[in-house]
Amino acid sequence: MEALKRSITQYGQVVGTDVLKVDGFLNHRLDVSLLAQMGRDVYDHFSDCDVDEIVTIEASGIGYAVLTAQFFNCPVVFAKKKGARNQAEGVYTATVHSFTHGNDNVVAVDKRYIRPGDKVLVMDDFLAHGEAVRGLLSICEQAGAEVVGVACAIEKGFQGGGDELRAKGVNLYSQAIVERMDEHEIVFRD
Amino acid sequence: MEALKRSITQYGQVVGTDVLKVDGFLNHRLDVSLLAQMGRDVYDHFSDCDVDEIVTIEASGIGYAVLTAQFFNCPVVFAKKKGARNQAEGVYTATVHSFTHGNDNVVAVDKRYIRPGDKVLVMDDFLAHGEAVRGLLSICEQAGAEVVGVACAIEKGFQGGGDELRAKGVNLYSQAIVERMDEHEIVFRD
Repeated sequence: MEALKRSITQYGQVVGTDVLKVDGFLNHRLDVSLLAQMGRDVYDHFSDCDVDEIVTIEASGIGYAVLTAQFFNCPVVFAKKKGARNQAEGVYTATVHSFTHGNDNVVAVDKRYIRPGDKVLVMDDFLAHGEAVRGLLSICEQAGAEVVGVACAIEKGFQGGGDELRAKGVNLYSQAIVERMDEHEIVFRD
Repeated sequence: MEALKRSITQYGQVVGTDVLKVDGFLNHRLDVSLLAQMGRDVYDHFSDCDVDEIVTIEASGIGYAVLTAQFFNCPVVFAKKKGARNQAEGVYTATVHSFTHGNDNVVAVDKRYIRPGDKVLVMDDFLAHGEAVRGLLSICEQAGAEVVGVACAIEKGFQGGGDELRAKGVNLYSQAIVERMDEHEIVFRD
């Protein structure tokens, strides 16, 4: 998705060997106009899939998912990262390791919001090792829902998570795949 | 805002004396169509304020803020609840007490994303004691930005945060103000 690649090239900052900071438009400051274009592109890719809901994970996936959901005219369900006092019993959970934060999070979705047979589009802003997406796929499987596809904004191809999902037959659409990167250059997969 | 009040009446669950659960459309499952209507209503209220950016807080404020920002054609900046390995130095911070979770969070915004003189609309999904909004106002003040207004979806009027902000001269717009509630009834302020 060319507009996204241009923003990554222009504003992305590579830190060390594996961190790509895109705080300026995707992870902290949200370029709502770009996200809406990205949402339209995701919709074009999955428009024949009859999506019942988009499932994502807090926090930075939410803006991207919501602006995509407008085109599908469907709700968004976001997995929560920990139990809260006012969170209901009756949740599907998965453990997700964060390489960024160096810890494990339990993510949870209320059983009422993903129903058996629902057609789900899973979305996340980043796909690296694939931990978050695998957690969301597990939750959808527990719910008896059908995952019609997975969309992510930026896949770090060199970390392998995306290719593992494709090898398992997941219908994955990454809007920009970074093949390699260093402080001088960010190279996208064709 | 009548559509929001109807959803609160229909789907809201009162837990104990002070928790209003609206997970079904605002806090966990997001009713994107309703949120877009709410965003339009916020825009109508603040459309003459020349908003440069909307500032909110992760996580559940993000969807509401992003769908509002589409009308203003402006970006959203969301305060992050804790430091992350890939978060830059150079942030404005505030400490926010969460009565829901019973803890304090440091929230942070990168200094690059709120500039001196920016006209900021602060948004959050809930306003109870006003802790989160006060934290965001502090961050905007540190940045030298001008807060042109505060919009929140649901104000729990009986917890006093909204009235304190009004008494200080904050231009606060709450789309639904719950005057009192119990397990049988939710009553809105006129």
